[in-house]
Amino acid sequence: MTSDEGTPVRVHIIGAGLIGTSIGVGLRALGWPTTISDASPKAERLARGIGAGEALKETDAPDLVIVAVPPAATSAQVLHALERWPNAVVTDVASIKAPLAAAVEHAGLASHYVGSHPMAGREVSGAAAAQGDLFRARPWVLCPDGADPGAVALVRRTAEALGADVVVTNASAHDAAVARVSHAPQVAASAVAAALASLSLSDLTLAGQGLRDVTRIAASEPTMWADIARLNEANLKETIAGIVDDLARVRDADDIGEALMDLVERGRREATRIPGKHGGRRRDWTPVTVIVPDEPGQLLRLLTDVSALGINVEDLAIEHSPQQPVGLVELSVDPARAGDLSTSLAERGWEVAS
Amino acid sequence: MTSDEGTPVRVHIIGAGLIGTSIGVGLRALGWPTTISDASPKAERLARGIGAGEALKETDAPDLVIVAVPPAATSAQVLHALERWPNAVVTDVASIKAPLAAAVEHAGLASHYVGSHPMAGREVSGAAAAQGDLFRARPWVLCPDGADPGAVALVRRTAEALGADVVVTNASAHDAAVARVSHAPQVAASAVAAALASLSLSDLTLAGQGLRDVTRIAASEPTMWADIARLNEANLKETIAGIVDDLARVRDADDIGEALMDLVERGRREATRIPGKHGGRRRDWTPVTVIVPDEPGQLLRLLTDVSALGINVEDLAIEHSPQQPVGLVELSVDPARAGDLSTSLAERGWEVAS
Repeated sequence: MTSDEGTPVRVHIIGAGLIGTSIGVGLRALGWPTTISDASPKAERLARGIGAGEALKETDAPDLVIVAVPPAATSAQVLHALERWPNAVVTDVASIKAPLAAAVEHAGLASHYVGSHPMAGREVSGAAAAQGDLFRARPWVLCPDGADPGAVALVRRTAEALGADVVVTNASAHDAAVARVSHAPQVAASAVAAALASLSLSDLTLAGQGLRDVTRIAASEPTMWADIARLNEANLKETIAGIVDDLARVRDADDIGEALMDLVERGRREATRIPGKHGGRRRDWTPVTVIVPDEPGQLLRLLTDVSALGINVEDLAIEHSPQQPVGLVELSVDPARAGDLSTSLAERGWEVAS
Repeated sequence: MTSDEGTPVRVHIIGAGLIGTSIGVGLRALGWPTTISDASPKAERLARGIGAGEALKETDAPDLVIVAVPPAATSAQVLHALERWPNAVVTDVASIKAPLAAAVEHAGLASHYVGSHPMAGREVSGAAAAQGDLFRARPWVLCPDGADPGAVALVRRTAEALGADVVVTNASAHDAAVARVSHAPQVAASAVAAALASLSLSDLTLAGQGLRDVTRIAASEPTMWADIARLNEANLKETIAGIVDDLARVRDADDIGEALMDLVERGRREATRIPGKHGGRRRDWTPVTVIVPDEPGQLLRLLTDVSALGINVEDLAIEHSPQQPVGLVELSVDPARAGDLSTSLAERGWEVAS
C-alpha cells in the first residue's frame, strides 16, 4: 500500500482550490506523478495549466488520494475515494477532523484513512493563488485514529516532502484544540469588531494597535466560518460558553475592577503558554521603537544600521501614524542589547521612541 | 492665562512615571521651563536626574499643570492643582475622561481644565523608560468640555510641541469610544486566552498567527485594567453586554452556522472602518510571503533585494516556524507590483510562499 521511502508516490488530488492545487504544484516539483480532478471542469483545467497534475485516467491506481474540497463536502468525497480505490491511502485537508473519523469508522474503512489538516495561512483562495511552497514551515496536523501505521507513514512522508512541520494528535483532541486556538478567537474577534457599529469614524481615530491586532481576523470569509462552526459545533459552543461566562461575570460584577483583574490575570497566565519562536515559550525580547520617515528605503536603511551594530532583529512590527508621514518600527531584540541599540541608533540620527 | 504662540510655556508636571517623565524630557528638549514633582522623593529625583524638569519652588507660577498620576488618583490631583494655581491651565493624561470632567464641573473649575489622553503605546512603565519622543506621531485626545478656548489652545500647543496627532472630542464620547476600541478588546482578548487553560502544550502547537494576534494584549497588567474598568464601568459593561449577547446567540443557536455567518459578516463590515495608514481606511496591500532563514542578516538581505527592485514595503510581519529554523516574512506591497516582486525574488533565490 505505501511506497518505499525515496520512491515517488502516485498521488491523486480531488479538488482544485488553493490547497489542492498548491499540493499538486509542490509534489510535481518533487517529481511525484500527480493527477488532479475537480467537479468544475474549468477549475480542473486551470489547475492542470498551472502544473498541479495531469488528468486522472480511468485506469489510474493512486497510492494516495488527497481530498481537498470544502469542509462540508469532504466526508462524501473521502468515503467515495476509499470505496473506489481500496488499495490507496486516503487523506483530506479539512479543518475539522472528528466528523470524518466517525464517518470512516462507521463505514469500516478507517484503516486506510488518515485525517490531516495543513495549517497554511492564506487570506486568498482559488487555484490562481496556488504555490508549491504554501506548506513550508507551517504545521500539518495528522490524526491517525484508526489508520494503519503504513498509511500514517505515507501521509507523513507527503506532508514532510512539502516542507511542513508534522504534528500528530487524534481527531477529537484536534477539534477540541482548534475550537480554542482558532474558531473561538475568530468568533470573539468578530464580536469585538461588531461592537464598533455604534462609533463614528471620528471615534474610531482613537483605535490603537491593540484593536487592530484583535480584529485582524475579523476580515475573514463568513460562509467558510459557517461551515466550520457547523462541523465543530459542540466544541465551539462549549468554548464560547466559557468565554460568555467569563465576560458575563465582568458585566454583572459588583466590583468590576476585581472581576476584570481576575480575568486579565488568568488570560495573562495562559497567553505565556502560546508557542512562539521555535515552538518554545515566547521569549521576552525587548522592543526598541524607532520613528522612521514613511518613504521608500528608510526601513532598509534602519536595518542596515542595526545590522552594522551586530544586533539580531528577532521580530519587527510597523505601525503607521494616522496623521503624519512616519511609521513607528518596533524592533524586538535581546534584552541585553536593547540599551546599546537605542543609544547607537540615536547617535546615527534615528529618532528612538523607546 | 495662555502664553503667546512661540513663547515657552512654564509647565509643572505632577507624577514622575513613564508619561510624566517623558513629557518633561520632551518639553525640556524644546527649551520650555519645566518642573516635575512626585509623591515619591526617589521617583522625583530620578526624573530630575533624567532631565525631565527642575524641582518645583513654592513661588513658581506655572502656565500649565499636567497631572500624570495613575487614573484612580488623577481626580484629586487635578482639583488640588486647580485650587493651588487658579491662573494656570490644568490637564491630565488619564485614559478615562468623564469622571474628571464631572468632578471639575461640580467644583466649578471647568474653565481652566482640559482633559487629555495621550495614546502612547508602551508595555513598560516608570521614569527609567521615559523618552521625549514617546508621543511623536501618536494620537493625543483633547476633551475641552467646559474649558475656555485659550486653555484648550495651550494644551493643544503642548501636545503638538511633543509631536502628537491631536484629536478633539468630549469626555463622554471619548469614554464611550475607548470602551469599544480599547477596553472591551482587552477584556475579550483576556477571555480568549483564559479559554486556553484546558489545552496541553502539545494542543497549543496548533496555534496560528490568528490566536497570537488576538491575544497579544492579553499580556497586559491586571491592576491597571482594574482601575480603568472601575472608572469606565458603565460604558464597559454596556459594551461587554453587547458582545455577550452576540456570543450567547452563537452558543444558543439552533443553526450555529447561520448565527456565526451573521456575526462574522457584521464584524467584517465594522473592521473595514478601523483607520489604518494615514488615518484613511485600511489600504488593500497585497501580501508576498517569503521564507527566510532564521539567522542574522537575512531580513536585511531580503529588504535590500526588495529595495533594488524599487518596490516600497508598506508593511512587514514576521512569523517564526515552530519547528524549522526559518521565518515567514510577509511583505505588504502595492497590488500592482506583487507579481513582479514574487517573480524577481524567486529569481534571486528566495523561497516565495505566496
